[in-house]
Parts: sequence; structure tokens; C-alpha cells
Amino acid sequence: MIQEQSGRGPRIRAVRITPIAIQDPPLLNAAGLHAPFALRTVVELETEDGVIGISEIPGNEATNQALEEASRLVIGKDLYQLNKLQKELEAYFGKDSVTDRGDAPWDQRKLVHVFSALEVACLDCIGKLVNRPVVDLLGGRMRDSVPFAAYLFFKYEGAGGDWGFSKDPGARGWDAARQEAAVDPQGIVNQAIAMCKEYGFQSIKLKGGAFEPELEVACMQALYREFGPAMPLRFDPNAIWKPETGLKYGKVMEPILEYLEDPVRGQENMAWLRGQIKTPLATNMCTTSFDEIPSSIRLGSEDIILSDHHFWGGLRASMELSRVCNVFGRDLSMHSNSHLGISLAAMVHLGAALPQLRYALDTHYPWQSEEIITGGRLAFDNGAVHVPSGPGLGVELDRDSLQTLHQNYLKCGLKKRDDQVEMQKVHPDWTFQKIRW
Amino acid sequence: MIQEQSGRGPRIRAVRITPIAIQDPPLLNAAGLHAPFALRTVVELETEDGVIGISEIPGNEATNQALEEASRLVIGKDLYQLNKLQKELEAYFGKDSVTDRGDAPWDQRKLVHVFSALEVACLDCIGKLVNRPVVDLLGGRMRDSVPFAAYLFFKYEGAGGDWGFSKDPGARGWDAARQEAAVDPQGIVNQAIAMCKEYGFQSIKLKGGAFEPELEVACMQALYREFGPAMPLRFDPNAIWKPETGLKYGKVMEPILEYLEDPVRGQENMAWLRGQIKTPLATNMCTTSFDEIPSSIRLGSEDIILSDHHFWGGLRASMELSRVCNVFGRDLSMHSNSHLGISLAAMVHLGAALPQLRYALDTHYPWQSEEIITGGRLAFDNGAVHVPSGPGLGVELDRDSLQTLHQNYLKCGLKKRDDQVEMQKVHPDWTFQKIRW
Repeated sequence: MIQEQSGRGPRIRAVRITPIAIQDPPLLNAAGLHAPFALRTVVELETEDGVIGISEIPGNEATNQALEEASRLVIGKDLYQLNKLQKELEAYFGKDSVTDRGDAPWDQRKLVHVFSALEVACLDCIGKLVNRPVVDLLGGRMRDSVPFAAYLFFKYEGAGGDWGFSKDPGARGWDAARQEAAVDPQGIVNQAIAMCKEYGFQSIKLKGGAFEPELEVACMQALYREFGPAMPLRFDPNAIWKPETGLKYGKVMEPILEYLEDPVRGQENMAWLRGQIKTPLATNMCTTSFDEIPSSIRLGSEDIILSDHHFWGGLRASMELSRVCNVFGRDLSMHSNSHLGISLAAMVHLGAALPQLRYALDTHYPWQSEEIITGGRLAFDNGAVHVPSGPGLGVELDRDSLQTLHQNYLKCGLKKRDDQVEMQKVHPDWTFQKIRW
Repeated sequence: MIQEQSGRGPRIRAVRITPIAIQDPPLLNAAGLHAPFALRTVVELETEDGVIGISEIPGNEATNQALEEASRLVIGKDLYQLNKLQKELEAYFGKDSVTDRGDAPWDQRKLVHVFSALEVACLDCIGKLVNRPVVDLLGGRMRDSVPFAAYLFFKYEGAGGDWGFSKDPGARGWDAARQEAAVDPQGIVNQAIAMCKEYGFQSIKLKGGAFEPELEVACMQALYREFGPAMPLRFDPNAIWKPETGLKYGKVMEPILEYLEDPVRGQENMAWLRGQIKTPLATNMCTTSFDEIPSSIRLGSEDIILSDHHFWGGLRASMELSRVCNVFGRDLSMHSNSHLGISLAAMVHLGAALPQLRYALDTHYPWQSEEIITGGRLAFDNGAVHVPSGPGLGVELDRDSLQTLHQNYLKCGLKKRDDQVEMQKVHPDWTFQKIRW
């Protein structure tokens, strides 16, 4: 160990921001249709002595621009000064950027994304410097592997990657199923069987909000018939239901659901519904920031916060959120967007550190086929991912793959996620409605 | 940097527990009188490769016994596995030990003390291993020095150290003032002037609950006259007042107090009083654990939680408490008992990391004259303590002093704090009353 003056550790010399586009299937949700490419941004942070930490966040031109600005604040800073960095970013970007997530199912706030990107990359660096996995920088591991749920989607045919919804006729198993359309109960059951066979998931979630409630609930009932009561089932219509619809179908699904996610929009509606059904309610749309916690607690609007370290300001903030949830008798699990292995690794380190983890985490990972980490895609073992064994996040950037996916970004021309525009390519008259049914 | 398999770091080889007794003046409080010696326990934790981490907690035979038992759970464990260690200790000691703090002003729970002792020593070790101060293991420093308040006490004559309330006739300045009796407004003002002159404190707290409210409030008014409106004043009668007394004197002191600490007993009484006076209420007796936070928030019983890392389960838990307080618009500052420099250093690292710190911390440190760290007692600069510059806590054990104070422990015969017994040596008929006036 080199003895240098304590507190004068390695400083940040450079921040590299690389937008990438990854093939994404035509998945349906309340806000429309996934584009053939999902955008992500990879951040590399290099210290003066050449250690590189990495992170991955949802891709968005405005966020990338904010990251560029934030980088100027970060250069020359000590890796460990995360508390102060957060305050500086808050001061720079303003408090407004903390609170406005937008109406879409995904979060559009700049500051939390920027801080998450920098914090995870700093923790990856620190872990490499001290030769410990990131989970140990969060208080150490409660478990060696982290369970995830099968994440089912209504979808059109194709596997993404161009605008023609391509299908590989030679694909087998999950690779074939991943390309098939799923717009009815049998399609969803087929998707679930193939995904669970491939990944070993021990719980199942269906993203709804795409079709009329009756059809979507019929899909949940078909899953229950197929998998039986031992398989925990979740359903998420992305807050597109009216309260009376939430009540009607909440009651119908009460006997078969582990939890119901964002059935209705807003904490008041969630709390009203929660008072009338026994099913625990989860959210990643109605309570999405620390600012919204007090009213969530006061109203009793949900049982489970689906955190996302990209949206809650990083891994340490998520540990603090876990304490908040524990204090108030709430559970914490994790939300996901289309992502690659750097985000998955960060989720696994966090999931391994959480003192309480009752519900398997969400992940879109099976819907992607590409990767930007060396050694290829992370493996699932009975639906769970082992904490990577290396220091830091335990995953390393494959620069060739990164460049390939960055070229995809440049070629595809997408600058931010807009599921409505994609849906209108198929159904020109379709428009997003915050509350539809 | 030695490359070893990540996550297979240095394990704990030994835990040494050393009870000590430190000279303590005859300070008065709601529970009676300080004994001539205050008890502390010093914990040393040694890794397989010989790195030693230290911590200091309030001394108590039952806690020491629990620490001995906990040590058996800790030997062979990896330093970084704090999340799991806490769960194991909870399982071993049972949840009961988490919730029962007793009626005295100081906390008597075993588990939080034990975990705090082990966590701080682990963080000290980790800091030494990675050559960073503990503050950087808490997210880094928000400030380079941490402000403390002058902590005034009603007291009898003497400076502690035997049962005769000895006084050194040759003492000068604060050393002399520290020995003088203070049982009236002039005595308290004299004490404040001497302490502030010596330490440079920028705010003042008086521990009350010892005399009739009228006298104690007169002391606060005398302090206000002496120091003027620019000096923040606090008063703490240790929850010994009836609600109507809290209201009467709360109103009287409204124009002169920065905050009023535990004027009445229990969250309901605190909330009732808070609704009727403008002064912020602080507590270290009415809300003292995470379990008590929900009712505190629901009732609105206080504005400021005076955490104590010895009572809230360590430094990381205190950072989480800070987040909880911030989410609900509460402030966090810190409580103190008679202590030496290891505890002070831990408080300073925590205080430096807290994202928000509006109120100067409490410390009994000026009332002690001994020390067990090399280099002697920590210095105050304008009432603040600089974050020690070394790795870990930045303080090292002076083994000769430790042995001397351990011999004091063996000689003095005290096994736990009992301020009632001490008071009865002076006033035989005196008994502790939870609510007296």
C-alpha cells in the first residue's frame, strides 16, 4: 500500500461519455412502442493514475449534454467526495431538475441520471483501487446472488435492430420466442415459458397498459393457470387505469397477484385503491423521488417502492431509500429499463447489499442480445445473477463492442426515447394518454 | 496495491475490550449527579495482518458482557461485511434489545452500543487499509471542521476523580472554572464565559432538569443578557417537565432559544407543546430509534433529532438517519455523553460527512481532562474540531493512558452509570422522577 497523505487520493482526470444504441424488440407499453434501438449512455471516469470506472444510464441527448456540463465540475475532484459532488450538481442544475420526471413510464430528470452515472463510476473506481467489489462499499453482501423476475411484454413480431421488425427464421428457444409476437394470452404464456426456461426466473411480471384491461387481465389469469400458485405474479399497467378500473380488476386479480404495480395514476388514487384491495401495491411512477416520500407515507399509497438507482441518485441513495422503506414498513425492489451489463452489474451489487429484499428485481436484460462488457453477457442461475467476483462493479468495458454500439447510435439517429412516435409508425392516429381505461 | 481476490480482504483476528473510568465533575441533571468517574469502553479490533481499528462507547458492565459475546461472532469475519454483521447481532441479541432505552437521559440498549462499537472499529480499520479518513467512507466531507456547542451544567464544586469532589486551588482559566460550583444564574454565566473563552464555542446549551424551572429559566435569561441575540442558546431539562410547565416556560424562552430540547416526556407531549410554541424542539429522549420515527413524523413531535452514533447503531446508520430527517424536513444534530477523543473523532467524521448540518453538535469533552489517544486531547478552533488528517478515525490509542484509565476502572468499582445513587450520597432522600415539575 502506497502511503500518501490520507484524503489526497486519486483525482478524476477525464470523463468520457459515449452514447450507444442497442437493439430492442417492438415491446408495447402504455406510452406506445419501443423503437428498434434503445439508447444508453456509457460513462468512463479516469483517475490521474489511470484507473477507469464505468457506469451506464438511460440514453437521452439532454442528459448527455448535462453529463458533459457536469464533467467540467468533476475534473480534478477526489473520487471519494460524493456528498459534496451531489450538492454541487444540485446547485448547478437547480432543484427543478430534481422533481419533474414527466408523465411517461420512464423517468426524464437530468440531475438524478447525471449523479447516478458519476457516483457508480466513482464507486467502480474506488472498488478497483481498494480491490473490493462495489457491494462492499455499500456495507457488504447480504446475499451472493440477486433474484430477478421474468419481465413479459406485449409485443409485435421482431427482435429490433432496424425499422423492419426483423425476425431471424433460424432462431431457437428463447432467441426464437423473443422474436415472436405476443398480443394475447397464449402469446404471453408462450413468452413466459420460453423466458423462464432459458433464465430460470422464479417470479413473473407482465407489463400491461397496452391493451384493454380485460385482455391483459386474461393474460394474467392464463399465466396463473399455466404456472400455478407457487409462481409469484405481478402486473403493471403503468398508471393508465382509472380508479374504478383499478378497483374492478384489482379485485379480479387479488387471488393471483404477488403485487400490482402502478394500477392507477397518482398517490391519492393509489391510496384509495390500496384501501380496498388486499394486494400489495408497488410503484415506480407514483412515488419516484425522496421529495414524494412524505405524502406516500401519509397517504399509504403503496407497499413497495421500485427504486432504480439511475432515477434515485445512485447506489448510496438507494441504500438510504432502503432504510426509509424499512422504517415505514415498506419494501424496496428495483425497476428496470432496457439495459446492458454495466447497469445490471450495478443493480446486482445494490441488490446484494440491501438489508431486506423480499421481491425479485425487474430486468429487461433478456430482451437485449448485445453487450459491451468483456466476457459477453452476464449469466443467470435460476433467475438470479451472482455478484461479479472482480473489484468494483466486476465488469470491464469491451471497447470494440462499445464502438460498434456507438456507431449504431450515430446511424439510428434517435436522440431520446419517444414511444409515441414509434407507435404512430404502426398506428398513425395513436396518441399517448396518461389515463386511458 | 496487492492484488488478491476481491472480497477476500483482511479478516478480524481479535477483539479487545477495555473498560476505563475517566474523571468526571459532579454535574447535575434530571437523573441525579455524575459520579466522580464516568465509564467508557474502548474496543480494539485487529485484523489478520495486524491493522488495528478502535472505537469508544459508553461504559456499562452489561454492554461489555454483550460485547464479549458479540466478539465471538466477529472473529474470522471480513471487515467489510457490516450489513450482515448487524443482522447477525440482531438475531443473537433479539429485537427486544433494540427498543428499550430506559427512562434515564442516557440510552441503555445493548445492541446499538455493541454494533456501534464494532462498526466504528471496522471503519477505522478499513480507513487505515485504504489510507482514507473515515469521513470518506461516509461519502466524503461536506466541511473540514465540525462546530460544537458549549455544554453547560449545573454542578457542585469539584472536578471529579475521587469521592471528595476535589478542587485544585492552583487551577487557572477554564481549568479553574471547571471545578467551581454553578447552581445559580451567575455561576452558569461564569461557566459559559470561561468555557467559550477557552474553546471558542459559537452556541451554548444548558443541561437543566436539576432545579426548579424558574431558576433554570432565569439562568437562560442571564445567558441571553450576557451573550446577546447573536449567540444561539439551547436548553434541555431532560423531559422532566409536565406539559403545562413546558408550555409556560417554553413561551417565556421563545424569544431567546435556538431550540428547546426534550422539555416534556413522550412524543405526544412534545407534539402538543410544539403546536403551541414557535421554538424548534429537539430530542434525544422522545425519539431515539428508527422504530420511533414513524410516530414522530405522524405526530410532528420534534424538529431536530439529536442522534448519537453510539445509540443509533453506528456512523452509516446515522447517515441514513440524516436522509430520513432530510426527507421529512427535520434536522439532525448530535447528542453527547462524557467521552474521550475516540468518540469525539468519530463524531467529527460523521459531522463532516452530514449533507445538512444546521446546528452545532453537543460534546461533554471540555468536562474531561484525560485522554487515551496519542498526542493528547483534540483541539478546538473557534468551537469547531478539524477532521483528523490521518487515515481511519485519525487517532491512535495511547496504551499507557489506556492502562492507567483501566486501572481507574478497576479501582473505582463502578459497573454502570447510576446518577441517583450518586445524588443520594449528597441528598439521601433524593429519588429520580421521570416527571418532576
